Amino acid sequence: MLFKDVYYLGEDFEARRGDVAVRGDTIEYVGPAAPAEDFGEIISGGSRLVLPGFVNAHCHAPMTLLRGWGEGLPLDRWLTERVFPFEGRLTAEDVYWGSLLGIAEMLASGVTSFSDMYSFCGSVCEAARLSGIKANVSRGLLSQDGGALRESKAFYETEELFNTWDGACGGRIKAEASIHAEYTSHESFVRELAEYAKACGAGIHIHLSETRREHGECIARRGATPAEYFERCGVFEARATAAHCVHITDADIEILARNGVFPAHCPTSNLKLGSGVAPVPKMLSAGINTALGTDGASSNNNLNMLEEIHLSALIHRGAAEDSSLTPPGEVLKMASLNGARAQGRGDTGVIKPGFKADLAVLKLDSPRLTPLHDVLSGAVFAAQGSDIEMTIVDGKILYAGGEFTSFDIREAAKKAAAAAGRIANELLG
Amino acid sequence: MLFKDVYYLGEDFEARRGDVAVRGDTIEYVGPAAPAEDFGEIISGGSRLVLPGFVNAHCHAPMTLLRGWGEGLPLDRWLTERVFPFEGRLTAEDVYWGSLLGIAEMLASGVTSFSDMYSFCGSVCEAARLSGIKANVSRGLLSQDGGALRESKAFYETEELFNTWDGACGGRIKAEASIHAEYTSHESFVRELAEYAKACGAGIHIHLSETRREHGECIARRGATPAEYFERCGVFEARATAAHCVHITDADIEILARNGVFPAHCPTSNLKLGSGVAPVPKMLSAGINTALGTDGASSNNNLNMLEEIHLSALIHRGAAEDSSLTPPGEVLKMASLNGARAQGRGDTGVIKPGFKADLAVLKLDSPRLTPLHDVLSGAVFAAQGSDIEMTIVDGKILYAGGEFTSFDIREAAKKAAAAAGRIANELLG
Repeated sequence: MLFKDVYYLGEDFEARRGDVAVRGDTIEYVGPAAPAEDFGEIISGGSRLVLPGFVNAHCHAPMTLLRGWGEGLPLDRWLTERVFPFEGRLTAEDVYWGSLLGIAEMLASGVTSFSDMYSFCGSVCEAARLSGIKANVSRGLLSQDGGALRESKAFYETEELFNTWDGACGGRIKAEASIHAEYTSHESFVRELAEYAKACGAGIHIHLSETRREHGECIARRGATPAEYFERCGVFEARATAAHCVHITDADIEILARNGVFPAHCPTSNLKLGSGVAPVPKMLSAGINTALGTDGASSNNNLNMLEEIHLSALIHRGAAEDSSLTPPGEVLKMASLNGARAQGRGDTGVIKPGFKADLAVLKLDSPRLTPLHDVLSGAVFAAQGSDIEMTIVDGKILYAGGEFTSFDIREAAKKAAAAAGRIANELLG
Repeated sequence: MLFKDVYYLGEDFEARRGDVAVRGDTIEYVGPAAPAEDFGEIISGGSRLVLPGFVNAHCHAPMTLLRGWGEGLPLDRWLTERVFPFEGRLTAEDVYWGSLLGIAEMLASGVTSFSDMYSFCGSVCEAARLSGIKANVSRGLLSQDGGALRESKAFYETEELFNTWDGACGGRIKAEASIHAEYTSHESFVRELAEYAKACGAGIHIHLSETRREHGECIARRGATPAEYFERCGVFEARATAAHCVHITDADIEILARNGVFPAHCPTSNLKLGSGVAPVPKMLSAGINTALGTDGASSNNNLNMLEEIHLSALIHRGAAEDSSLTPPGEVLKMASLNGARAQGRGDTGVIKPGFKADLAVLKLDSPRLTPLHDVLSGAVFAAQGSDIEMTIVDGKILYAGGEFTSFDIREAAKKAAAAAGRIANELLG
């Protein structure tokens, strides 16, 4: 496949003009004029921007089923009165259809890989397998009862996830460990899971300082911030993805930097739930590899990475009253390369020969992108999800022109809607 | 035209289910089951939400031509080094094509009326006339030279605008007066324009406390905040639209409330330019009729009102760490009825018999709106611009299924791109 005479995002995260050639699952050539060999399909024209595929670094894909469920309630009542009872009725099949619907949304917004934390992980992996997307999948563990890790049913599910799915589909699917958050597990449990992750050489996925209350209660309970606590538990000795990081302190930022932790910034969710605004410019200045995520559709309410890119480019400028922050190239790097690094995928996230052909193609010819004085500001500030023309994973076109090539979106949407409707009816009586 | 068995936004700004019937340019019936008369075209099906058309309460439509021009510079250098030289080369024809392109973007995101401040107002009005959209058009006046209002060329253009266009197209186009901002005119000039607006019974459109610097320098210069200054100049004795209101004080909020001023909140522009976050929840609590706007495409970078709706619903929750703020119905009211009131249009902005059929129809069947546990949170948090199926002004379909019925979008985009390219080439040499 050859993209001829297009804009593309260079290794330096600046817009370049030229050719991008793909052979098999790999980017073979990037530059001013591709060599004359036959690359099969030739996609030509300058009204396209070829981007590295986006990595959704924090998601609960099956929560599409809860989209709009319990809106308007305060966070604690939303969780206890609406979310937990709904989740208590989910089956493995429900989670499969919810995941597939979520993956469809992600592919349609240029996402080529996502990091997920949920239950029924086999269903999440099955949906990822069928769709062709890449995924780092984890079972979010909770334990407040003081029990040992190895007696926990959820840890049994984690082991099952690793045994069945880690490295599946040629490495497209990876298993990770996960502690849901500081406030939902006791310390020995966290330490044991960190040991397990290190022993497996696996990543670990956590929520960190999402709300002011969580952050403050941890200090009161443990005499340490959540970041200090997780560091002392050994969690950061594994490759760690820390979702949110809204209320972290300057000292916490040093901890994240020192340990090479990967924060996953989730601007929509943080705003919608009233959590706050994460100190992203400070993290970037500290050299922290900050990635981007959508969180679940229940707190977003979609899985459109272009919206997270858009919001990340906007809100930190507004919060700091400084329009020089988060320029387009930096935000696009957060959405791609930084996410790939958070996933421990060293062979993707940048458009460079030898790297995997994980690509998102943005059409630049819509009225909202006309005129095009600046390509990257167009992509970040003016484009919509619907401007994504094509999403490619390992050289395979998975989404193009509104259609999905690997599964039936109508069936997925219908089954997901039916599952969500069944549970809503059961709960509402 | 009859929308049969759809969701619609009720007078109470809650989602309702039923029929909405339009005869001529007017909404004739709204309720559970429309009477049996023939309403011509019947559009049926529950996977639609009929909304009052959106009112873009603060725009510089021709600035589509500057989309992405001068990105990355600080505000003052952006204006003086890039924007002003570009604007100095604009012709009336350029402004016509830029306006038409901007109107296309607005119609495609459900906008049925907009309030504009720019120059070459005849071109803006011509584009509005052709397209069928409603518009309150004003010539933004600046005068720092101490001259009298009636000696100003821009005031001559304002008079010409009123004489030629006020009430044109059956009232679809209205002329307004405009003072660009406190810092760009001297006091006697402002007082004279306020008198003129009152004498015409017209509205007046200003920028107010957009940046911290503007707000502080006004206090230093005049011993008054911009709101205090404009009140003492008599500006608020006319129906006044005050764009931005980012740095207003609590005392300013009382001034706006007491005078019935209509703030136009422009969240994207305020964030992108690093201006800050306007105190919208405080204004709403004070009973102030707060409307929504996109500002110009040069600081946005598009004219998609769904994005402003989305951002308005998100950012105030995040800034105040309170998820109960700006619920979907309230934000949709800001985007419709509050804007119509700001425009002095008492016959539109709500779906109610006897009101003008200015409507935006949102398709609810995309994957990102599935499942649909909550219709209004779907519209505000999950929908994209591309989910707008149809935009109707005075009962006429102006946009449907991606096509515009009253003008050639391809020609507009081509002419606008050519104009922008010509000026960019002249400036870049």
